[in-house]
Amino acid sequence: MKLYSYFRSSASYRVRIALNYKNLPYDYCAVHLLKEGGQQKQADYVALNPNAVVPTLVDDGHVLTQSLAICEYLEETHPEPPLLPAHAADRAYVRAIAQTIACEMQPLQNLRVTQYLKNVLHLDDETRNAWTRHWVQNGLVILERMVLESGRAGRFCCGDTPTLADVFLVPQLVSAARFGCSTDPTPTLARIAERCNNLPAFVRAAPAQQPDAEP
Amino acid sequence: MKLYSYFRSSASYRVRIALNYKNLPYDYCAVHLLKEGGQQKQADYVALNPNAVVPTLVDDGHVLTQSLAICEYLEETHPEPPLLPAHAADRAYVRAIAQTIACEMQPLQNLRVTQYLKNVLHLDDETRNAWTRHWVQNGLVILERMVLESGRAGRFCCGDTPTLADVFLVPQLVSAARFGCSTDPTPTLARIAERCNNLPAFVRAAPAQQPDAEP
Repeated sequence: MKLYSYFRSSASYRVRIALNYKNLPYDYCAVHLLKEGGQQKQADYVALNPNAVVPTLVDDGHVLTQSLAICEYLEETHPEPPLLPAHAADRAYVRAIAQTIACEMQPLQNLRVTQYLKNVLHLDDETRNAWTRHWVQNGLVILERMVLESGRAGRFCCGDTPTLADVFLVPQLVSAARFGCSTDPTPTLARIAERCNNLPAFVRAAPAQQPDAEP
Repeated sequence: MKLYSYFRSSASYRVRIALNYKNLPYDYCAVHLLKEGGQQKQADYVALNPNAVVPTLVDDGHVLTQSLAICEYLEETHPEPPLLPAHAADRAYVRAIAQTIACEMQPLQNLRVTQYLKNVLHLDDETRNAWTRHWVQNGLVILERMVLESGRAGRFCCGDTPTLADVFLVPQLVSAARFGCSTDPTPTLARIAERCNNLPAFVRAAPAQQPDAEP
């Protein structure tokens, strides 16, 4: 398999964790989102991924996009070890956590949007940072409540083994720290992330461990 | 089953289509997103859905949130008629279409975000409308390309029967029309949506058909 990734992209990070957790080796193809006006906008990459975003996974000639769709594909084609629980309602909870991150938080902090805030709306640094922190901090508080009220959390978001909820949570918390969000209101998430970050699959997927990492 | 919905919410609309397509009867609980400062923010609703958004589906005591997680749950618990194709790579394509809508388009047009643009950033009507049209129109062009380049489209986004790709596409096109986006650059999507809108499951899910519809 071949993964088109950028070290700092939280969506790429999710897929790296899932691949590692399932012990699937892959070639790392770095796509620099800032150099040369954004390598993801170059014609050969857009031919692969019309959305001009990372990640893209190529497996056996199949070109797969969107991090959650890729993770579901990996779960279907390589079910062991599982990243979704057995029961439908638990699976729905895990997916709801992943989607709260993928649909309500990350879309508002991503490069495309922050570039629009800067280049089209001409917002200053402080206003743009406040925007990002607002959505990410609010989202974390919601996630903390979802996890607590579900009654499903154990050592991880759903029971005592990692699921896609954790796979999505850890990269979001890394971004949150970069944006200056506080983890004080979300101690449960912080504890879960700490446990994840002791697992080799998560450690090896971290931005700083990637071949294209920058200081 | 009980569905908490707002007639104009595109995320609710997706779940209404899926429920109808699978012939699952449900009670409609209207949550008005604008009245009384937003009924979705009231304590009894937030206890159900900490995210304070619609839809929420309650099935047999299970409280389910996030439209795609709900649709996946319905697919797992009521597999016939299917809304996902049989093969993993086709399923990944269908989910990627759904997620491009749910993660790249809808989050930038939704009420919470447009209220922030108005109330916090104090942007005028024209600038806010340009923001919404920008993300939705760009997203539609990307979707058209994804559908065409996949080689998978038939009468619908994936072959000749509806899938979750169509379930997500139709509400997004209804929103796009409301925002003044053009369908000229996306004739394939427009044709697919027209076919969907001849099916009773889609017709009965339309905003104007809901008990809480307003002119």
